[in-house]
Amino acid sequence: MKTNAIFYHAGCPVCIAAEHTIAEALDPAKYAVEVVHLGSDKSRLKEAEAAGVKSVPALVMNGAAFHINFGADIAALR
Amino acid sequence: MKTNAIFYHAGCPVCIAAEHTIAEALDPAKYAVEVVHLGSDKSRLKEAEAAGVKSVPALVMNGAAFHINFGADIAALR
Repeated sequence: MKTNAIFYHAGCPVCIAAEHTIAEALDPAKYAVEVVHLGSDKSRLKEAEAAGVKSVPALVMNGAAFHINFGADIAALR
Repeated sequence: MKTNAIFYHAGCPVCIAAEHTIAEALDPAKYAVEVVHLGSDKSRLKEAEAAGVKSVPALVMNGAAFHINFGADIAALR
């Protein structure tokens, strides 16, 4: 069974670099990666914050939030 | 041919979580991941800084540095 990983971003250049490099580099045999644009899909903000996401881009995997560089504070997306 | 990725860390708990989750999740068919402990291998500090690493843990891939959460400033490891 694959592990779910969620990559949260907001379309910023820092986000796109992280998506193309890190999110797309995860082993497809082990991880199912969902990409969520919090700027256009604000209904997912609550879930992202509950998972510990403070800024984007961030990757939520194995129950933990991993912030990758800094694009935007999640508060700026509400 | 595999792409090289270098995961720089300093043994901190934040570093270890990032290593076990992100660095070990990269597709082994595409990426050769080298793990470098900058606390014990100070000879690699210069190279890490030249690649743009400002703090650990960080992953250098495709010529860019991706800082994953924050464990320690690289200046604290010199």
